[in-house]
Amino acid sequence: MEIRPATDSDRDAVWNIFHEVVAAGDTYALDPNISREDALAYWFGPRTHTYVAEQSAIGIAGTYILRPNQSGGGSHVANAGFMVAASARGEGLGRAMAEHCLSEARQLGFRAIQFNYVISTNIAAIRLWQDLGFKIVGTLPDAFRHPEKGYVDVYVMYRSLVP
Amino acid sequence: MEIRPATDSDRDAVWNIFHEVVAAGDTYALDPNISREDALAYWFGPRTHTYVAEQSAIGIAGTYILRPNQSGGGSHVANAGFMVAASARGEGLGRAMAEHCLSEARQLGFRAIQFNYVISTNIAAIRLWQDLGFKIVGTLPDAFRHPEKGYVDVYVMYRSLVP
Repeated sequence: MEIRPATDSDRDAVWNIFHEVVAAGDTYALDPNISREDALAYWFGPRTHTYVAEQSAIGIAGTYILRPNQSGGGSHVANAGFMVAASARGEGLGRAMAEHCLSEARQLGFRAIQFNYVISTNIAAIRLWQDLGFKIVGTLPDAFRHPEKGYVDVYVMYRSLVP
Repeated sequence: MEIRPATDSDRDAVWNIFHEVVAAGDTYALDPNISREDALAYWFGPRTHTYVAEQSAIGIAGTYILRPNQSGGGSHVANAGFMVAASARGEGLGRAMAEHCLSEARQLGFRAIQFNYVISTNIAAIRLWQDLGFKIVGTLPDAFRHPEKGYVDVYVMYRSLVP
């Protein structure tokens, strides 16, 4: 597997994964009916580093973004988002991208990474982030309306990158 | 004092306040050198309700925005931001706008309001939000680089609007 910066020719593959993940509506607070144009404008936005994970057998199976979470006095903290194709889950792709992300964030000079919106029902993601040193630093009560479970809590997770 | 939706003719006054607040660089994680165009695109953005507080003697002395904090399954939680002209501080303008905001948010059907980024050195704001029922639900360690105090914590604050 190779993880590398996304290029324009990856846009179709990224959109396929993005659309699948967001249409499910249970892990991202995005409009499940978001258009391809808006989705790609978001995922390839200004100040956003976009990566893809490519497997020799099946092609692009995951994508992630890394960007400053805020501007001005908050720009030393990164934000990241990860998406894995349903067909490629449970094979360590998320972990590989997360480790790549930690390394990239350090190289870009970020001092911390913050996830603003980790839905509490997304157990696999939470376990992975905790395993990689992220801590739950905030709990937003009933902040997400889950398509099956109704209102559920959302976590803010944070990991320092400096000693 | 009157608090009302902003119109196009308020843009100069809003920019004056915005510029003054952001240039100080101690309460918002925005580029202190943000252009007028980018600032107004942000403050009058899509899905954003923009208000101004007008005093008969001095004109527009404050402005605030109210918008969904997320899309999709997170769109029932509002986000808000407040700015008061330096010359008008300490006169209850912030509190009047905040109370107006709570009422507007309820009327628009939001179930909660979240502040994503309350800098821990902004004591007056934190006291006001707590007085109005907001709770600190998260602490982001060293997430803001204060122009004088260096790295300081940032709070996430939250208030439910439903019984």
